[in-house]
Amino acid sequence: MLPKIKIAVDAMGGENSPKKVICGILENHKQNKDVIYNIFGEIEKIELLLPKNYDKKIFNITDTKNKILDTDSPLSAAKKGKDTSMWLTIQSVKNNESDVAISAGNTGALFVISKLNLKMIENIDKPALSALWPNKNNFNVVLDLGANIECNDKNLVDFSIMGSSLYKALYPKDEAEVALLNVGSEELKGNEIIKKAYQELNSKKNKNFSFHGYIEGNQIMDGKVNVIVTDGFTGNIALKTAEGTANFIIKEFKDSMTSNILGKLSSLINLKNLNKVKKKLDPRLYNGAILIGLNSPVIKSHGSTDYIGFSYSLDVCIKVVKNNLIQKIKENISR
Amino acid sequence: MLPKIKIAVDAMGGENSPKKVICGILENHKQNKDVIYNIFGEIEKIELLLPKNYDKKIFNITDTKNKILDTDSPLSAAKKGKDTSMWLTIQSVKNNESDVAISAGNTGALFVISKLNLKMIENIDKPALSALWPNKNNFNVVLDLGANIECNDKNLVDFSIMGSSLYKALYPKDEAEVALLNVGSEELKGNEIIKKAYQELNSKKNKNFSFHGYIEGNQIMDGKVNVIVTDGFTGNIALKTAEGTANFIIKEFKDSMTSNILGKLSSLINLKNLNKVKKKLDPRLYNGAILIGLNSPVIKSHGSTDYIGFSYSLDVCIKVVKNNLIQKIKENISR
Repeated sequence: MLPKIKIAVDAMGGENSPKKVICGILENHKQNKDVIYNIFGEIEKIELLLPKNYDKKIFNITDTKNKILDTDSPLSAAKKGKDTSMWLTIQSVKNNESDVAISAGNTGALFVISKLNLKMIENIDKPALSALWPNKNNFNVVLDLGANIECNDKNLVDFSIMGSSLYKALYPKDEAEVALLNVGSEELKGNEIIKKAYQELNSKKNKNFSFHGYIEGNQIMDGKVNVIVTDGFTGNIALKTAEGTANFIIKEFKDSMTSNILGKLSSLINLKNLNKVKKKLDPRLYNGAILIGLNSPVIKSHGSTDYIGFSYSLDVCIKVVKNNLIQKIKENISR
Repeated sequence: MLPKIKIAVDAMGGENSPKKVICGILENHKQNKDVIYNIFGEIEKIELLLPKNYDKKIFNITDTKNKILDTDSPLSAAKKGKDTSMWLTIQSVKNNESDVAISAGNTGALFVISKLNLKMIENIDKPALSALWPNKNNFNVVLDLGANIECNDKNLVDFSIMGSSLYKALYPKDEAEVALLNVGSEELKGNEIIKKAYQELNSKKNKNFSFHGYIEGNQIMDGKVNVIVTDGFTGNIALKTAEGTANFIIKEFKDSMTSNILGKLSSLINLKNLNKVKKKLDPRLYNGAILIGLNSPVIKSHGSTDYIGFSYSLDVCIKVVKNNLIQKIKENISR
């Protein structure tokens, strides 16, 4: 029998918690009988959401009295400290009681508490926040999305290695195809940092990915690469701009299609087709940013996702453990 | 009688030129009888596109034998030099024979040739590439979109002044509402350069705009501000990411809605509504990036636009001249 996967879960983070977290766990458990959920949160609230005779070996609750709020600054959250559900979740991976940690709570706090408690992978200078971003064929891994406002060329090379290891952990059958996000595709474009990273990636041997040079913002979703590397400032703005654009267009479509009776009628007929698109773009499917570079993976579920989205994030947890993400990064960084 | 507006037009730049340029001029002329078009290009080709007895005072052609190609590097384009249609177009504003210049040709070349020939506005350090970007209410002016890969705080403050002057020239009745594009809305977010620009904009008195602090990528289109300021690296990637996202979603919608007969039928009914959305998002409507900071405005029409799009760009030329864009910038920079 394979050893069981143990996930440390912060039950108190994000909107509508612990309900969405616990319902997400129950949803996830249906398909994953080999997973132990080490749950950190208010036991009274949590037990109300679980079946009466729940299996305490599978749903292993640690009662916590304190929690990090979305309004806490990262620093004040870290100071609040050692009795919060988030801190104890991260401690659980630090103490090897869990293989991976997940929270839907305050991103900045999760980042700082993780950095305080977990060691960096050797030879990686900075951890990065990565996420899945849909493309024509499937998904891209994109990083960094805001953990590091300023990055040097070594960071960008590290991100390429970590991002492609993550891609291979999530999609073991595919090749990782890396590109740097830039303002043009010619070798001369961009700032000095990105040009140096280009040179280093181009001359690097024995790498766990193919390097495709630069892509521009309008090529992110065309599916020709699947790991997109950028600094945290640019990545954050690109991701949020895409989100804003998608919301804007979908709303315009909806408004126009229901602006008169004929439109409403035909939209009803077309509902099934529209729902297909919506499903493909459903942010719950790729919910969960992944903080990589630390000795254990830490997953950040979106604060406003529902239990289905949280369950998908738990799937990501399982995949990165099963496919040895951290081991893959360690092997590739030392090549 | 008002003095006539004189537009210097490079007839040879962009796809399908000079046809789309000349047809765009004829389209634009229908509504603008007070405009003189100083046209630079191959006279034989151009005259074939004009009515036989065209008015040579309104359509004033200068025959040119050489042209800049899209494949020319900015430097080789500048060296090609003084007999190209683009160079002569810029010379025409330099020599005060025209009030504004426009080209649908090679952006990098247009940028370099403009900088070589035209003086900077006093106290502005760098010119910026700005464009119109739709939002919920109307349009944003966004800059810089790629002219300056690296910017300091003074540049960002200059861009705020120039962007709001441009906004007021295009929409004289509205107030200019400026924000800096950042990775968060709290004062502490971002890099040192953007924080310094924030402080300077916040403490600046007698400005020609309201300053709204930071916005994130997902707020660009929500219509709460209308002048969005960023460095050229971030701005270029944000703009192209939005473009790619819009294309992706519209294609997904179209594919899903025509994937079966019922969908096709109801889409036909819904065509009118869909076309409304398409019209609102029609890139031809906001075609034309504007290079500002030089002593004359230079308009870059999209290379792949059609004659309708080119005609809209000519409208932008007329507005910035009529509403004294350069004068507005000069007044505001010295406040």
